[in-house]
Amino acid sequence: MNKPKLHIIKIGGNIINNPEVLSSFLKDFSEFEGLKILVHGGGKKATELAESIGLTPKMIEGRRITDTNNLEVVTMVYAGLLNKNITSQLQQNGCNALGLTGADSNCILAHKRVIKNIDYGFVGDIDTINSNNIDVFLQNEMIPVFCAITHNKNGQLLNTNADTVASEIAIGMSNKYSVSLIYTFEKNGVLRNINDDNSVIEQINSTTYKQLKNEGVIADGMLPKMHNCFNALKRGVSKVIIGNPTIINNQNQAFTTLTL
Amino acid sequence: MNKPKLHIIKIGGNIINNPEVLSSFLKDFSEFEGLKILVHGGGKKATELAESIGLTPKMIEGRRITDTNNLEVVTMVYAGLLNKNITSQLQQNGCNALGLTGADSNCILAHKRVIKNIDYGFVGDIDTINSNNIDVFLQNEMIPVFCAITHNKNGQLLNTNADTVASEIAIGMSNKYSVSLIYTFEKNGVLRNINDDNSVIEQINSTTYKQLKNEGVIADGMLPKMHNCFNALKRGVSKVIIGNPTIINNQNQAFTTLTL
Repeated sequence: MNKPKLHIIKIGGNIINNPEVLSSFLKDFSEFEGLKILVHGGGKKATELAESIGLTPKMIEGRRITDTNNLEVVTMVYAGLLNKNITSQLQQNGCNALGLTGADSNCILAHKRVIKNIDYGFVGDIDTINSNNIDVFLQNEMIPVFCAITHNKNGQLLNTNADTVASEIAIGMSNKYSVSLIYTFEKNGVLRNINDDNSVIEQINSTTYKQLKNEGVIADGMLPKMHNCFNALKRGVSKVIIGNPTIINNQNQAFTTLTL
Repeated sequence: MNKPKLHIIKIGGNIINNPEVLSSFLKDFSEFEGLKILVHGGGKKATELAESIGLTPKMIEGRRITDTNNLEVVTMVYAGLLNKNITSQLQQNGCNALGLTGADSNCILAHKRVIKNIDYGFVGDIDTINSNNIDVFLQNEMIPVFCAITHNKNGQLLNTNADTVASEIAIGMSNKYSVSLIYTFEKNGVLRNINDDNSVIEQINSTTYKQLKNEGVIADGMLPKMHNCFNALKRGVSKVIIGNPTIINNQNQAFTTLTL
């Protein structure tokens, strides 16, 4: 028997930082038919709040550290301000959104990242997606909207990478659904020339990915995103797409499809 | 046919401000058997955050005004920091908590308070409780945890009195359940002498309430709370209790029971 289809769509900080782009995306998302889950990243507001209350970003070897104060800030901004404003805008569009963190109904169980060389602080690596509870929402016509805060079921909230939240939810829901994972961001897809938005590479598989890495076409921040994509495909997700947020509504928009 | 029982328990800012009292209450709440909903107030953290980012409280005739900046603050603190920390602590205790605002799954629909003499800003008065959606959570063994943020289904979040959120949810759920509404706060109940915590008035009905008001025994901040209590009883809530948070676990603790 064919599994029913489920779309998991991730939006990043660049979309959230622009109220008009966000509003337009949320309209498209509301009109997008079928079962769906939204995962959103953070954006600049957390940094702004941290600065305005006098926190200085803690960095070790170029990596941001989430100490207690910064965890409070991201919990307030991601789970409070952003998640609830996105939820209320979706409700306005007739989309029955339900804003969630991983702590809510124990949807995403994580552990504090194990200290090797760097103690990242309250950063969570995901262990388990509670697909049964997430499915309760879907089966009752509620649209889960996840921010990237998880918990360890020991009373500790954890800051987690939003791309990873999206890919782990996609993997976790693949036991019940044929899942399409759609990463949207400010570019039109994986670009051959980062300065040319028309240079979208429309198909990437494991072999061409290696070539593109060797050529230096895929580098820097795209590498962890691509890791999440291929990890999802290897672990049961049916389809992974990277593109501009308008792809969920615009058939003529180019995008990148990843295959194993 | 008898309706199944549902308990709605409200905790106020004084409990939230004290981590030990809060932790102890959340353990008791987790052990409290049967169907239950938690509603929590705000506490001092929102004021602290507002001050630390340089907001000065806007007051008109002694009433606090929720402008855009203050709405952001309460959304961050109530829906983010407090709601998600309470949820994760309950999860730690084995209670399958689900943190919610009124925007989530459109659970609480409100409108911006109509301007008569004072424009209170983004303050919401409740129109409708979506008892069907709240019941989906209860029927699936999830424990709703509401903060006092609602929405107008037109994209606007609204700051709402937490006592009123509790009483309106109690009223809204009374179509399906025999609802007990329990207001907990820092005192042992309605006191005959505000300085004597042993002077709990154990029973108050509409008639004795009028007498106690005339005598000045019930005054000030207790008046809107009592209004919420009697409003709930008049509109179908089975039982209303006011007391110390330990009453949900301690049979020997005195408290006030209200009847029509």
